[in-house]
Amino acid sequence: MDKPTLKLIAKELGISPSTVSKALNNYPDVGEKTRQRVQELAASRKFVPNSVAQSLRQQESKLIGFITPNAVHYFFSNVLNGVIHTAQANGYSVIVLSSEDKIEFEKEQLEILMNKNVDGILLSLTDHTTTYDHINKVVARKMPLVLYDKISKFVNCSKVTINDRKIAHDATRYLIERGCKRIAHIRGALNSITIIDRYLGYKKALKAHGIEADESIVYECNQPTIEEGKRITDLMLKEKIKIDGVLAFTDSLAIGVILRLNELGIKIPEEISVIGFSNSVQTRVVSPSLTTIDQHGFDMGKKAVETLLKEIRARKKKEPVKFENIDVPTEMIIRNSTR
Amino acid sequence: MDKPTLKLIAKELGISPSTVSKALNNYPDVGEKTRQRVQELAASRKFVPNSVAQSLRQQESKLIGFITPNAVHYFFSNVLNGVIHTAQANGYSVIVLSSEDKIEFEKEQLEILMNKNVDGILLSLTDHTTTYDHINKVVARKMPLVLYDKISKFVNCSKVTINDRKIAHDATRYLIERGCKRIAHIRGALNSITIIDRYLGYKKALKAHGIEADESIVYECNQPTIEEGKRITDLMLKEKIKIDGVLAFTDSLAIGVILRLNELGIKIPEEISVIGFSNSVQTRVVSPSLTTIDQHGFDMGKKAVETLLKEIRARKKKEPVKFENIDVPTEMIIRNSTR
Repeated sequence: MDKPTLKLIAKELGISPSTVSKALNNYPDVGEKTRQRVQELAASRKFVPNSVAQSLRQQESKLIGFITPNAVHYFFSNVLNGVIHTAQANGYSVIVLSSEDKIEFEKEQLEILMNKNVDGILLSLTDHTTTYDHINKVVARKMPLVLYDKISKFVNCSKVTINDRKIAHDATRYLIERGCKRIAHIRGALNSITIIDRYLGYKKALKAHGIEADESIVYECNQPTIEEGKRITDLMLKEKIKIDGVLAFTDSLAIGVILRLNELGIKIPEEISVIGFSNSVQTRVVSPSLTTIDQHGFDMGKKAVETLLKEIRARKKKEPVKFENIDVPTEMIIRNSTR
Repeated sequence: MDKPTLKLIAKELGISPSTVSKALNNYPDVGEKTRQRVQELAASRKFVPNSVAQSLRQQESKLIGFITPNAVHYFFSNVLNGVIHTAQANGYSVIVLSSEDKIEFEKEQLEILMNKNVDGILLSLTDHTTTYDHINKVVARKMPLVLYDKISKFVNCSKVTINDRKIAHDATRYLIERGCKRIAHIRGALNSITIIDRYLGYKKALKAHGIEADESIVYECNQPTIEEGKRITDLMLKEKIKIDGVLAFTDSLAIGVILRLNELGIKIPEEISVIGFSNSVQTRVVSPSLTTIDQHGFDMGKKAVETLLKEIRARKKKEPVKFENIDVPTEMIIRNSTR
């Protein structure tokens, strides 16, 4: 659909563009009836007069848009908290949209944010984002944009991420160093870069320590839930060779493993060590408490906003914009689920 | 400070108000230099021309504002999810602001939302909100407003709440019916209506069952944390008469109680039963799992948005607005921490 313009509205009503403009701006030399017809048509077409758009641009909206694929996940709720806190401290408010991991929502929401004249956008991709035209359009319009957490190399902009490959590598190495020899991995479907990178980090660490990766003890969950962790534990225990370590790509799965092993009387960490990812609140409460990776979601949100504000300021001053790739540090939290 | 008007800007620059208006709207019959001077001054004063404001109002901003005192708490993150989901399904986007439980932030953020021309506001009060002029100003401007969760009877608007008194009453009655006779209560400071109501519900249930309330086993925590739950458990165990039940006003405290009792080898629920509030994710994971109250945060967010949209639509059609008091149902989740 063509973007409605002053000219198109004028043509449709059979009046001059300057009358349309005056009507939209409530000039007294336009009759009440004409004013009403113009304003109704403009409203129905969601037409934003240039002057309105322009004056909004000039004074800045002081709004930034934040798109998350998952508004309830513990990690994203921490990221959001960092985003809101940092934005507010800098005089910005945040429009929060959840793509609910649907690419159609992601596309629609970028349009919504452009129409709301936000000063910049923070975006984490859905697991199904495999084309990037809708995002590159945002870049082409010189709208400040930062990808965070779930990113793509096919978009030319600043990116704030966690080095998932490195942390999965370090966690796996930790298990090996503590004596584990047959380490299972629970991952999600391989359509998210986060999941792929953790899987590759796991395999790389095994290889670096002369352990052959064994696909028969790499499990794909349907959902990252406690129930799935329990179900997969039962599958693991059916393996002929006994596993002695588990690296789960997220805490809920690791907790499911712990709860099921507890039910079966299998000792953690003596018989099996378990590591999760996220340092979510449950990890301190489960028994034994879970060794996990703190992803510092708040810091990621903070960094993402700071990077975005830098770009907003640079573009405002018409200075060159230098895209950054920022790696947010993580921290391994050693608790009682590992030897 | 006076709100900048066309006239004031005209006076300051020594030109006519109509020239200012034309300059702001980029009319060709205003010289480039004048246009620039006007637009710069207007921008620096954050002047929104009436025509801009008006056309924004006419076409609706399709934005609603959401102020939460606590963006990371599990309950509020569920409420937010319900809000975002329901708003998006109705074509609205949500500006999320966190008052961080500070009344100055609450005041400032209501102003920000008014200035952003949101179509309506959802507000949960800080624990320190004891004056209401800043909120009643919103009501007076006929801006659609719904208070949720932490509300005040001194504001005349729709309210979406949980009946905290009733659920604390029911939870206490449950403990009594299962044989508990000396039930301790852990509450927060009495400056939040939620905390007061839970405390009153607890006392009412004791009274209704002929048990005299004993202030020596009502404990005030400094923070709703696991650590505080542990600290208070030690205080409880110093009491001469043995307590046999604990009603904590939030899950983290109840979990602290469980973890400390486990450390001391005191059997739950045989010796002491424990109940929390929120049904947060940890409650299923702690051992024994925690009996708690599910507050259905998602439903509260959904109801709050639906109530707000009803008011937005009514005001748009100039129909009378009927304020509603909505009680979101809760559910007691019986697990293994109670007899």
